[in-house]
Amino acid sequence: MRQKIILDCDPGHDDAIALLLAARHPALELLAVTTVAGNQSVEKTSTNALKVCTLARILDIPVARGMQRPLLHPPHFAADIHGESGLDGPDVPPPAFPLAAQHAVDLLIDLFLHSDGDIVLVPTGPLTNIAAAIRREPAIVPKIQAISLMGGAISVGNVTASAEFNIWADPEAAAIVFACGRPITMIPLEVTHQALATEEIIGRLRAMQRPVPTFVADLLHYFADSYRQVFGFPAPPLHDPCAVAAVIEPDIILAKEMHVEIETQGAWTVGRTVCDIYAKTGLAANARVGYALQVDRFWDLLLDTIQGYE
Amino acid sequence: MRQKIILDCDPGHDDAIALLLAARHPALELLAVTTVAGNQSVEKTSTNALKVCTLARILDIPVARGMQRPLLHPPHFAADIHGESGLDGPDVPPPAFPLAAQHAVDLLIDLFLHSDGDIVLVPTGPLTNIAAAIRREPAIVPKIQAISLMGGAISVGNVTASAEFNIWADPEAAAIVFACGRPITMIPLEVTHQALATEEIIGRLRAMQRPVPTFVADLLHYFADSYRQVFGFPAPPLHDPCAVAAVIEPDIILAKEMHVEIETQGAWTVGRTVCDIYAKTGLAANARVGYALQVDRFWDLLLDTIQGYE
Amino acid sequence: MRQKIILDCDPGHDDAIALLLAARHPALELLAVTTVAGNQSVEKTSTNALKVCTLARILDIPVARGMQRPLLHPPHFAADIHGESGLDGPDVPPPAFPLAAQHAVDLLIDLFLHSDGDIVLVPTGPLTNIAAAIRREPAIVPKIQAISLMGGAISVGNVTASAEFNIWADPEAAAIVFACGRPITMIPLEVTHQALATEEIIGRLRAMQRPVPTFVADLLHYFADSYRQVFGFPAPPLHDPCAVAAVIEPDIILAKEMHVEIETQGAWTVGRTVCDIYAKTGLAANARVGYALQVDRFWDLLLDTIQGYE
Amino acid sequence: MRQKIILDCDPGHDDAIALLLAARHPALELLAVTTVAGNQSVEKTSTNALKVCTLARILDIPVARGMQRPLLHPPHFAADIHGESGLDGPDVPPPAFPLAAQHAVDLLIDLFLHSDGDIVLVPTGPLTNIAAAIRREPAIVPKIQAISLMGGAISVGNVTASAEFNIWADPEAAAIVFACGRPITMIPLEVTHQALATEEIIGRLRAMQRPVPTFVADLLHYFADSYRQVFGFPAPPLHDPCAVAAVIEPDIILAKEMHVEIETQGAWTVGRTVCDIYAKTGLAANARVGYALQVDRFWDLLLDTIQGYE
Ligand SMILES: [Ca+2]
Ligand SMILES: [Ca+2]
Ligand SMILES: [Ca+2]
Ligand SMILES: [Ca+2]
Repeated sequence: MRQKIILDCDPGHDDAIALLLAARHPALELLAVTTVAGNQSVEKTSTNALKVCTLARILDIPVARGMQRPLLHPPHFAADIHGESGLDGPDVPPPAFPLAAQHAVDLLIDLFLHSDGDIVLVPTGPLTNIAAAIRREPAIVPKIQAISLMGGAISVGNVTASAEFNIWADPEAAAIVFACGRPITMIPLEVTHQALATEEIIGRLRAMQRPVPTFVADLLHYFADSYRQVFGFPAPPLHDPCAVAAVIEPDIILAKEMHVEIETQGAWTVGRTVCDIYAKTGLAANARVGYALQVDRFWDLLLDTIQGYE
Repeated sequence: MRQKIILDCDPGHDDAIALLLAARHPALELLAVTTVAGNQSVEKTSTNALKVCTLARILDIPVARGMQRPLLHPPHFAADIHGESGLDGPDVPPPAFPLAAQHAVDLLIDLFLHSDGDIVLVPTGPLTNIAAAIRREPAIVPKIQAISLMGGAISVGNVTASAEFNIWADPEAAAIVFACGRPITMIPLEVTHQALATEEIIGRLRAMQRPVPTFVADLLHYFADSYRQVFGFPAPPLHDPCAVAAVIEPDIILAKEMHVEIETQGAWTVGRTVCDIYAKTGLAANARVGYALQVDRFWDLLLDTIQGYE
Repeated sequence: MRQKIILDCDPGHDDAIALLLAARHPALELLAVTTVAGNQSVEKTSTNALKVCTLARILDIPVARGMQRPLLHPPHFAADIHGESGLDGPDVPPPAFPLAAQHAVDLLIDLFLHSDGDIVLVPTGPLTNIAAAIRREPAIVPKIQAISLMGGAISVGNVTASAEFNIWADPEAAAIVFACGRPITMIPLEVTHQALATEEIIGRLRAMQRPVPTFVADLLHYFADSYRQVFGFPAPPLHDPCAVAAVIEPDIILAKEMHVEIETQGAWTVGRTVCDIYAKTGLAANARVGYALQVDRFWDLLLDTIQGYE
Repeated sequence: MRQKIILDCDPGHDDAIALLLAARHPALELLAVTTVAGNQSVEKTSTNALKVCTLARILDIPVARGMQRPLLHPPHFAADIHGESGLDGPDVPPPAFPLAAQHAVDLLIDLFLHSDGDIVLVPTGPLTNIAAAIRREPAIVPKIQAISLMGGAISVGNVTASAEFNIWADPEAAAIVFACGRPITMIPLEVTHQALATEEIIGRLRAMQRPVPTFVADLLHYFADSYRQVFGFPAPPLHDPCAVAAVIEPDIILAKEMHVEIETQGAWTVGRTVCDIYAKTGLAANARVGYALQVDRFWDLLLDTIQGYE
């Protein structure tokens, strides 16, 4: 039986590839895609989700647009990394189908309330939709089987010295999610910075000589430029698909249970995922925090799935 | 010509060994030892400094007692690591000579004001004395050649999930020191956790069969127990001597210039050394932050010096 | 033409009286009552709203239940002031009609989106519903004619030394509302502490010898006990009706335009309405802050309206 | 027997008048004047103190220069109120005697340590010197008979919407002082804004036709201009002499015992004196907070004393 999941995302290059992985991997049943402001405005991330689904002929899954801005903070987009469209690089045709009528928050609430508690939530953007849904309808919380999210860092951040983008973009939302009490797998930068899309990886994709793999290769080519210019990375880290992969094969990451708090108050540390590795707080673990990736297995899993597309 | 230094410390097992290194290494001229509350009360750390000097016949260097508690925060000692005396473990005879008449802060001010700007300050405890001296007499700041301090962490802390003990114990003092404008070498946990005093190291000390090396071996034996119990470490990290070694041989650490801020406001991050590795703040570098240690060179340097003692 | 209003409330003794004033005053057209967690849980405040409407035969106005807890903070109810039911004191029959099918946040969004921008919002509880609606559908903001809210204090608070209950209960929501850009009239404790329901006032109500006035007198009797015990007040301040009265007769309060910020970060000041009386921030005024009440006019207005009920 | 006091000040127009009151009133024995950075740099406030003493022939009292800047925060002077010199307005001859050799912090420590616990400390500037002395030598704390300080506000501030200048200028120092455990009388803006130096008051001074009263009148004339321009006040509030007057005649202010905390963390409230009027914190009272002034008695006391000068 396939694991039901919902992907809550802000495509975004790596979100797009996470979506392709989630929609096609045989171990997963993708119930819905919900979008949120993050890498770009929610209008753009929603359009991008529709475009990816159109290109890849993922036509039977609702795509619902969500929150336009963070709970409290002003919105900050990541145009330096993902471009003005949020998905710069490849030429992608326009969406061939419309957004779901429901708001993403309502769709999340409906799907969870009417579920048997067997849906894993996979957020790969700021956690605004999830937090808004939890506050709007607390009854969904016990229905969430688990959360596998891309976000945070054990050591240093990527948007500030302290914080990773997804958490920093809406730290209050992250605080709500990490306090919700459901099993959380946190995929931080320590994991995703091991998923470097090297030229060899891009070469494997191009060698498939089909539209979707070529699209992925084009995304990675643009992403490589961004990471070279902004961070001086030799190859771009493919963050978001790691959170999907960790649902498919939980041991594809090495992880440790610990307590994680979200800093919302500091002068220099807002959005930090404070990872209590040495159990100094005395607080119960609320997350399984990844610290390493089985790199070869990850790429095989991802590329095998992408190869399944036309 | 030897490099003049002042050691500002809170002995403390590793401070005691740092003192022995500072007092005897031929490249250094130790002008004074100043003590501060930290691992234990300033009464205890002062007595411990005198005891170490007495045992090692370091009789010509003033030992001045400093601040009794942090600038703002209440004091918290580290009895779990260093014991009730601050130097539990070895039997050490009582001090054979008295403290300097001057308060440590006044001695620091006098020494720097009357210097030719050729003294490196080596703090291995909370930065209370240094900050108090800077605020009491700002004219000393341009006279400080450099600061080589043990403190902080790039990744996770050791006293909280975010903070290392020396910085956390007096974060406001640390903020003052890091903003002072003089060259700072910061030796964080990333460096000192590589200076693990293994059984092999302790064996080399015991094999010297002389009082001071034996004393050092006894200190490390106690320290090993503490770190095994509190952190589950297989061998104890010898933090403070790294800050002295980095004065003797600057390239004994690998380091990178960057901006470091001290968080004094967060709900979960007070005392964090926010290390701006990717230059996200746009602020000028104010510290050379160590991230790795030339481990073998470090032990050779330290043990060769300890071997010089009776 | 009557001024359209929506009352967002947490009944609550003074909310109940505000509702009675809003529903019956000839200058107002009450479109909806929305409820929120505050003085008690949203279940209780919703039931209380229904009971008050039932008792007073206000049967044609939707009562919609809203947010169960603050955006970020844990909920804290005011049972010491309003009792376990949130409306302790009078015997009130059970509700004779049900809650609206819509969630309060959806009802607010629908009413504003489909309005001609001619509805004044009157919040008399924590601002959670309003903030949630603004974030869920930012397009409502330009449709809000104005907001007349009970909350905050210029000087000292009533729930902490710094903060008034409604703002303190959900400071992040308050921050969102005060930053929304629409005209805000803020009715702080300085105004409402002048609306003291003395024995003479209660006597005037009892002399009417009709069910609703008697109910109001009974509410005030209980409220008087609460304020005597908790604050040592000789008579209870009737906070919430002041925010309704300020819509009916804007000059019933003396007020000054100024910039107001909501403190969400302090160690001792969370929930404070920072009122920039001397324009020290240089920021544009975002609220008309009341500082005094035309006391006799207020009571005449209120009692004349209550007298209109059976 | 006269009450021994030390005046710690930052002259400053009102400090200057406080000094004149403290030095000449028959109920007081002024042991020392210590200066601090505040209204202007400590060089300027020290020179101003010497000038006032020279003009008024107060030649037997040591004037010691203190801290150059706040413990943590950067310095901010009040040139808008006190001018570039810190004592703009009157022509004052240069000092005829030098500063004490000792630093103010050392003088404070010496005087208190060698006292019989019978000295009241009267700070009328930022509390930097006092806090530095307390931290440098905690043994002075039980020797402080009491502290009567000008600073803080119950309601709104004068330098920010939340904070009064003396506390805001060094909030960490204020936090240390308010936590010291000795009896504190706090004279906030609520008291000092009643001590308005009207034209009638200035007229009474001019009518004395002697140098010191004329100097005071000239100070008040300049101060009146400042307060008219910056705050729109019809007459200037004479803050600092109130703290001296409250030592001479404790009932010259109306006051209430309560707990006061200093906010050091807020986004908008740093430096606020959080006055727990309704005892909401449950913490023991640490200050007697003035809320009103016996205005006529105050002016009579002050002008009678000034009249005693040549
Ligand atoms: Ca993403
Ligand atoms: Ca140390
Ligand atoms: Ca209410
Ligand atoms: Ca002053």
